[in-house]
Amino acid sequence: MQKAVILLSGGLDSATVLAIAKAAGFECYTMSFDYGQRHRSELNASLKISKQLGAVEHKIIKLGLDAIGGSALTDSKLTVPELASEGIPITYVPARNTVFLSLALGFAEVLSAQDIFIGVNAVDYSGYPDCRPAFIEAFEKLANLATKAGVEGKPFHIQAPLQNWSKAKIIQQGVQLGVNYALTVSCYQADEEGRACGRCDSCRLRAAGFKQAGIADPTPYYTK
Amino acid sequence: MQKAVILLSGGLDSATVLAIAKAAGFECYTMSFDYGQRHRSELNASLKISKQLGAVEHKIIKLGLDAIGGSALTDSKLTVPELASEGIPITYVPARNTVFLSLALGFAEVLSAQDIFIGVNAVDYSGYPDCRPAFIEAFEKLANLATKAGVEGKPFHIQAPLQNWSKAKIIQQGVQLGVNYALTVSCYQADEEGRACGRCDSCRLRAAGFKQAGIADPTPYYTK
Repeated sequence: MQKAVILLSGGLDSATVLAIAKAAGFECYTMSFDYGQRHRSELNASLKISKQLGAVEHKIIKLGLDAIGGSALTDSKLTVPELASEGIPITYVPARNTVFLSLALGFAEVLSAQDIFIGVNAVDYSGYPDCRPAFIEAFEKLANLATKAGVEGKPFHIQAPLQNWSKAKIIQQGVQLGVNYALTVSCYQADEEGRACGRCDSCRLRAAGFKQAGIADPTPYYTK
Repeated sequence: MQKAVILLSGGLDSATVLAIAKAAGFECYTMSFDYGQRHRSELNASLKISKQLGAVEHKIIKLGLDAIGGSALTDSKLTVPELASEGIPITYVPARNTVFLSLALGFAEVLSAQDIFIGVNAVDYSGYPDCRPAFIEAFEKLANLATKAGVEGKPFHIQAPLQNWSKAKIIQQGVQLGVNYALTVSCYQADEEGRACGRCDSCRLRAAGFKQAGIADPTPYYTK
């Protein structure tokens, strides 16, 4: 059985990716980051999702991104906007996916896994540059130059199965594969129980996805 | 004045790189990682070197690489070998330079710096794949796809000025630029005061470099 590392954010997309990797026959090792994010309930969500979908192990890596700052998601002095903005939003965390994929690469190398799954999506990617297909391709090239495994002819594959899927398609596929979306947290300002604000960019995209998919939205919301 | 981020390991090479960046006229921001390494004295060394060479700020980022394991440098169950081995050694930390450069990229983006300096060296690179020129080039490409700054036309440059220098040349240049090498720690099993074992791969390369450069070795050694 081939092993794979799956990056889990606690959100809807990466939970679906885990279900896809599992259905493809991989032995799944999930990985999340404790990086000083505001919405810490996503860490609890990741662990629950990893268990629900039968991953072998869930690893949480501590990462001091808050020392770098520069994003509304890690810097408590910046406010999360409730209206979609033009261009790259303030919730962009500098180099986040590069950092996350690098750590997944290290974990994969230790496990002798050659596949790394990430839930990036070029359709509703909110303007983040590190969600684009060209970025994923460049990372795969880098991975095979950077590592002992790559040099020794066991190449890594960065799998981004949601790349061109709409949110509605992601939800439909996930429901078919048994994902319990009530466990997932997408909101940028979720409360401690993982309940969502219903107002931020991320909440809007998610709610629209359920609506378009014709599936009842299981998200717990709080009223501000 | 242009800003630059300089990765400091506490060792001889990266200290020299900081001196080079400073001499080239950059306002220098240094960065080190608290990643569960055995030789924690390198963290103290980094801070001293940053101050000695006049960096504006020194940032230490916590990073749970020990949770991943797989290297004699982060896993206390593995032993550091005292004889040079063939191939990629057990001191190789999976994906380490990829992870370190990713975090430097995040810091550079927050600072609006376009230059990142790293002390990799392809001559005595000890067989680490992530010290090769092809790796550095691939990372630069990735950096410009991964970031807001790259997308907006402010490209990053990954500077590896020691790439083709011998250890002797590095030391000669560093002495000219005022690096106090007594502050640097290269040993894989240095003690708490930063004194070196004199036996590991890294100690051997360093001692040979001073000899070849014709410069007295200022390294403090302990006797095992």
